[in-house]
Amino acid sequence: MKHLLKMLDLSKEEILSIIDLADQLKYEHRHGIAHPHLRGKSLGMIFQKSSTRTRVSFEVGMFQLGGQALFLSPRDLQIGRGEPVEDTARVLSRYLSGIMIRTFEQKEVEDLAKYGTIPIINGLTDFAHPCQVLADLMTIREYISKFEGRKLCFIGDGNNMANSLIVGGLKLGMEVSVATPEDYKPHSDVLAFADEQVKAGAKFKLTTDIFEAAKNADVVITDVWASMGQEGEAEKRRSSFTGFQVSDELLSVTKKDVVIQHCLPAHKGEEITREVFEKHMGEIFEEAENRLHAQKAVLVKLMQG
Amino acid sequence: MKHLLKMLDLSKEEILSIIDLADQLKYEHRHGIAHPHLRGKSLGMIFQKSSTRTRVSFEVGMFQLGGQALFLSPRDLQIGRGEPVEDTARVLSRYLSGIMIRTFEQKEVEDLAKYGTIPIINGLTDFAHPCQVLADLMTIREYISKFEGRKLCFIGDGNNMANSLIVGGLKLGMEVSVATPEDYKPHSDVLAFADEQVKAGAKFKLTTDIFEAAKNADVVITDVWASMGQEGEAEKRRSSFTGFQVSDELLSVTKKDVVIQHCLPAHKGEEITREVFEKHMGEIFEEAENRLHAQKAVLVKLMQG
Amino acid sequence: MKHLLKMLDLSKEEILSIIDLADQLKYEHRHGIAHPHLRGKSLGMIFQKSSTRTRVSFEVGMFQLGGQALFLSPRDLQIGRGEPVEDTARVLSRYLSGIMIRTFEQKEVEDLAKYGTIPIINGLTDFAHPCQVLADLMTIREYISKFEGRKLCFIGDGNNMANSLIVGGLKLGMEVSVATPEDYKPHSDVLAFADEQVKAGAKFKLTTDIFEAAKNADVVITDVWASMGQEGEAEKRRSSFTGFQVSDELLSVTKKDVVIQHCLPAHKGEEITREVFEKHMGEIFEEAENRLHAQKAVLVKLMQG
Repeated sequence: MKHLLKMLDLSKEEILSIIDLADQLKYEHRHGIAHPHLRGKSLGMIFQKSSTRTRVSFEVGMFQLGGQALFLSPRDLQIGRGEPVEDTARVLSRYLSGIMIRTFEQKEVEDLAKYGTIPIINGLTDFAHPCQVLADLMTIREYISKFEGRKLCFIGDGNNMANSLIVGGLKLGMEVSVATPEDYKPHSDVLAFADEQVKAGAKFKLTTDIFEAAKNADVVITDVWASMGQEGEAEKRRSSFTGFQVSDELLSVTKKDVVIQHCLPAHKGEEITREVFEKHMGEIFEEAENRLHAQKAVLVKLMQG
Repeated sequence: MKHLLKMLDLSKEEILSIIDLADQLKYEHRHGIAHPHLRGKSLGMIFQKSSTRTRVSFEVGMFQLGGQALFLSPRDLQIGRGEPVEDTARVLSRYLSGIMIRTFEQKEVEDLAKYGTIPIINGLTDFAHPCQVLADLMTIREYISKFEGRKLCFIGDGNNMANSLIVGGLKLGMEVSVATPEDYKPHSDVLAFADEQVKAGAKFKLTTDIFEAAKNADVVITDVWASMGQEGEAEKRRSSFTGFQVSDELLSVTKKDVVIQHCLPAHKGEEITREVFEKHMGEIFEEAENRLHAQKAVLVKLMQG
Repeated sequence: MKHLLKMLDLSKEEILSIIDLADQLKYEHRHGIAHPHLRGKSLGMIFQKSSTRTRVSFEVGMFQLGGQALFLSPRDLQIGRGEPVEDTARVLSRYLSGIMIRTFEQKEVEDLAKYGTIPIINGLTDFAHPCQVLADLMTIREYISKFEGRKLCFIGDGNNMANSLIVGGLKLGMEVSVATPEDYKPHSDVLAFADEQVKAGAKFKLTTDIFEAAKNADVVITDVWASMGQEGEAEKRRSSFTGFQVSDELLSVTKKDVVIQHCLPAHKGEEITREVFEKHMGEIFEEAENRLHAQKAVLVKLMQG
């Protein structure tokens, strides 16, 4: 494991070893046991989109690991002022021990990995959000103990979260079901991966019926109807996604002690009702905290030694 | 003391204990004695308004205390992109050991404190500027040894500085006099507090006559006629505040060795003459430096242990 | 040496001692030998222009030295909101151990040094770019072992890079030749310095003929035709600079094992051909890395003890 570009690149064993280390780092953090595994190391964080959780959790995480995180906004960099990505990657590889990047195109992240000589971490692209999904999987294991045979259901846009959850869930042996509106299906590469897994015995369902998707689910995950940068489509999306809501009614068909996850920010009254959000706030904010621990585990795996 | 939201919340004993600790931290800093009381802790700094002194002194202060400060500008955060303050407060409480916020509405600061589980520090609102006033009080004691019976005079806008100085001065047993134009009086909550104190024996005077206010003052404090965000009112304010100037003429009625304070930036020739500013530069820049020491004391009080 | 404002201020001995220390810090960094010479110290970095290399190398460098760097963008500061530079310099001198500034006017940098009480480092002005040139000289010595009698050639705009290279090269005993278009000559102060040096026996040539300049050169350096802030002149400059290109044809007249330097970003196909850039990438990215080591040496010289 040289980079964290997308869930498709990780083996089941790699995913589990990240979650195991994340659990350990969380324990050490809670008990005040220092763990400066990245002493003296510097992580560059490039944000082409704004961020609260990713920004703060990575910057705090590097500090807790004895290292440093640099917040690099394109506004302050010469990146994009005509410098080709290969030169930027080569230069930054001379100063830094790793780069976390939040951007639009998956290709930009893959190019940084191709031309640079240091680990690259995908902090969200239009295609993938592996950091969030690693935190989700960590949280799920905290709440339901194991992955095999448990059912994970995603309701909403077939976006980077859906793409990454499908791959992560199937790799860990979960049954995965996804309900999206007709025009908002997950990425074809992800659906092709799911098809392969089904041929090998996995259970995967893509539907437009949220009740079918949620039936007997152990975990239900959702996300906002319009993500950052899609504000222009908000009206159209609102109409397409009406009904794609995690409500008490939907939860009447899931397992009784269902776990709810949401990567936040939540638009209560849209993709999730205020009632469900408030009832399940414990696990949702645990999931947010686990960004910190899961990402620290990724940083240690990629940048140590 | 769980937060630093406004001077009204602090007892006399709390104010004095902050200043005492600030004195000690200043001594240790000057003598190169390390004091990493907040090792491994992270402070988030949210700036809805620009800042030089607050930004630099908090960021340097956390570093000197062994911790980390994160500069969070709303431009780079998802805050304000529709995420309710309660969710932001809950999430940041999972990553950080404290938050310093500079913003407009006092309510935003109080809400962060209400919904989060970590200490909140008011780095300036339209209502209060407790960090600056703690630094002022620290500087005043350095220069005139004690508070009881000494006279503090504020000349200018009845703004966050006036509000916070009135409360801080009265709590420490000073005589407080304030001269503002008719339409720029301090906040009614602060005047109500002053009234109560007067009934209990304190001396407080609100006037539009700067000479009356400054008479026999030990300390004279002023501030710019138009603060950040009031640039649109600059013309109107210029006319309202004409005459509200700390000049040699005004200082002819104060104590002879009067101490001048200004929270900076200063508009020389407006609220203070260039001559007075330059003659009193020593204590004004000492006051600026004391932001560092006073805030470090606040951080230690709130975030240690 | 109290500041690093421009190469004209440095003696030959000072330049050499910076490069010597830079070599040592580079060795220690490569071998994992900690060198926390600036433990507990804070560097303010003021950027009036965007930056990748300067920003990252200074921030990483301070961290590796045990200190802290604060990224201060004018957007986030009150600087320029009417606060005179002398007050900003006085205030920042109370919090920080040094300031690095990237700005337009050389005078701003000199003023900070005049009014403040801490070391000021020029991180690029329209007149000078001493940090880059110290890294270049360090790289040149790595590749060609010594300065005396070697020929340094600069092709392109008579800008801050040309100004600083002429002075640095001549001070170290190099032969310096510069080819610029007629209307883009180096600064008159620099040409006056070169004239003096020539009278004392140095070799210096200013020409519009790139082949004359490059003849027998040991080192060829170039820079973009239009720098940051000159985008408006791009068209006019493109026509003025046509032919001012480092190409295989030009390198046919230099020494055979010529060293190429470029401060980046490079516009391949304009000031340098893609072929030359790729063939000489090794030394160009070594030069970029040496920004880190050379600047760390400057920081230690100015801020230690």
